[in-house]
Amino acid sequence: MKFSVTVTLKKDVLDPQGKAVLNTLNNLGMNSLKNIRQGKFFEIEVNEDNQEKAVKKIKDMCEKLLVNLIIEDYKINKL
Amino acid sequence: MKFSVTVTLKKDVLDPQGKAVLNTLNNLGMNSLKNIRQGKFFEIEVNEDNQEKAVKKIKDMCEKLLVNLIIEDYKINKL
Repeated sequence: MKFSVTVTLKKDVLDPQGKAVLNTLNNLGMNSLKNIRQGKFFEIEVNEDNQEKAVKKIKDMCEKLLVNLIIEDYKINKL
Repeated sequence: MKFSVTVTLKKDVLDPQGKAVLNTLNNLGMNSLKNIRQGKFFEIEVNEDNQEKAVKKIKDMCEKLLVNLIIEDYKINKL
């Protein structure tokens, strides 16, 4: 089973990387740009046919390694 | 209007970062893991009410700055 995980900074956490991208796009002449925030994206494939168990495993991976729960949120989607 | 952009490496491009994550998860005792690929995620907000024009702007941003079209693919979704 294949899942996607998107990891984003929590709403109130500063995002210097996104800010840098925003400034660069402005310098390239792209106006009408309101905001950009950058995050991480993972495509994870597990050997598990039971969806519930698979999601549980992915959650485990997120909380043990992929996501810093203090400053980041994550979302799991089935692909 | 708010859009999400996910940027992933093309299928045949090696992903050392994903490989490192895979190895680490294996070392943490998570078996039944088949594959992981890592990508980037952007949340972009534009001042534009016409969806078609907004998507065109986002595409432009992707192709000029956010995505390396030689090795990466991207997908735009409305949020």
